[in-house]
Amino acid sequence: MAMLKTPSVLISGANKGIGLELVKQLINSPVPPAQILATFWQSSPTQVKAKDNFCQELEALANEHSFVWMIELDVTDSASIRRAVERVEAILGSSGLNLLINNAGINSYATLKTVTAEDMMVVYQTNVVGPLLVTQAFLPLLKKAAQTLDMEKMSCNKAAIVNITSLLGSITLSQKNFRSAPMYPYRLSKVALNMASMCLSEDLKEHQILSVAVHPGWVQTDMGGEEAPMSVTDSVSNLMKLFASLSECDTGKFLDLEGRELPW
Amino acid sequence: MAMLKTPSVLISGANKGIGLELVKQLINSPVPPAQILATFWQSSPTQVKAKDNFCQELEALANEHSFVWMIELDVTDSASIRRAVERVEAILGSSGLNLLINNAGINSYATLKTVTAEDMMVVYQTNVVGPLLVTQAFLPLLKKAAQTLDMEKMSCNKAAIVNITSLLGSITLSQKNFRSAPMYPYRLSKVALNMASMCLSEDLKEHQILSVAVHPGWVQTDMGGEEAPMSVTDSVSNLMKLFASLSECDTGKFLDLEGRELPW
Repeated sequence: MAMLKTPSVLISGANKGIGLELVKQLINSPVPPAQILATFWQSSPTQVKAKDNFCQELEALANEHSFVWMIELDVTDSASIRRAVERVEAILGSSGLNLLINNAGINSYATLKTVTAEDMMVVYQTNVVGPLLVTQAFLPLLKKAAQTLDMEKMSCNKAAIVNITSLLGSITLSQKNFRSAPMYPYRLSKVALNMASMCLSEDLKEHQILSVAVHPGWVQTDMGGEEAPMSVTDSVSNLMKLFASLSECDTGKFLDLEGRELPW
Repeated sequence: MAMLKTPSVLISGANKGIGLELVKQLINSPVPPAQILATFWQSSPTQVKAKDNFCQELEALANEHSFVWMIELDVTDSASIRRAVERVEAILGSSGLNLLINNAGINSYATLKTVTAEDMMVVYQTNVVGPLLVTQAFLPLLKKAAQTLDMEKMSCNKAAIVNITSLLGSITLSQKNFRSAPMYPYRLSKVALNMASMCLSEDLKEHQILSVAVHPGWVQTDMGGEEAPMSVTDSVSNLMKLFASLSECDTGKFLDLEGRELPW
């Protein structure tokens, strides 16, 4: 079985949920990355209690492991993206960035009745514009990594962009699952992220950079809620196996945790 | 062959291109609508020359035909949407609105290299948030029309939403046509509009309101440019035939001018 042994990985939204669990399981993997760039941002500063603790676990991991770096990154702020790139460049030096995981995202339960323009815009900005502009900004570092490992085929160990999307971004499946989740802003953002993922795969295959959209399952996180059937540990251990298995055959695809292709 | 004989139709962006031609061909159709609500908005006020003339043709049509109404509608402005609804309600009275054509839209040629957050947001706001909020606002009028014609099956003559989208919003086809049009903001907006169209079809089928996404071809308009292979007259005469043919079998679909289903 293929093994994940990516030299460097950047994860957006790594202070909680799937992002934080990815940091943990990467640390404990057989061949941990030489550098883990764990970015954090508090998207709801009004939740005072959450604010106080929103980085506690990640902070403990960074204190314990010198190869885990905490980096502030608000994906909706171009100045914040620029600062994060500078910081990551300084850490990684000439080897570039191997794996970019666009994980940060927000939810919205707005229906046709309740949806507002502001809700639509905020969700699109965070879930689509953010990942796209983060990818644009880190592209020179991804290209550097791809060039450094020039002989190898496409993989997450070489140079890859993983976009954490959702089954709810499948137009085909909406025919079946719309009524159970009539979430307009979220669905529209995730299908646009899927399109971005496909465009990136076409744009970047000449540079040997892989791009996939991955549905992590319905997971017990702040976003997924308590009803969700899958633990974050299970989701991420499957994600780790999936990342290890990705090759040039997968670029441009929309995959579930088992590596099965989902319909657009 | 089915005939388009919809009692009332609202077209956004009716002051030029496909929207204006729709008004013309509806006026000259065998059974013209009793009311044509032609909405206009000048999205680029910087183009002074265009601004002076941006409504001239539509104005002439409205002066000549008492059933053609010019209505100001900026789909990105909720106050403007509200005013347009009030005006349309006053015109249509108790019969409701039969056909809503979400045609207004903007283009962007931004690539991965040149794309900005602002560009992404502006295109999404006009091409996706606009049509969705316009639909939300006109929904009571569409429902009224559907109830008035309660016995008939779904059709554009009864109650329907037509979203003018693009082939470039197909993720499946992006694998083939991305390189000839690497337009991130536009593609991402059109796929989101396609998702909106599918969600609306699921949401509104219990109310007997049809919803489709239609690719009008690559047309010689300000947006399509001079290179485009199809005249606006040909595109719209095909659109008219398509609208006439739409039934409950088509709701939720993504169609080309010949009524063929396009892949998501």
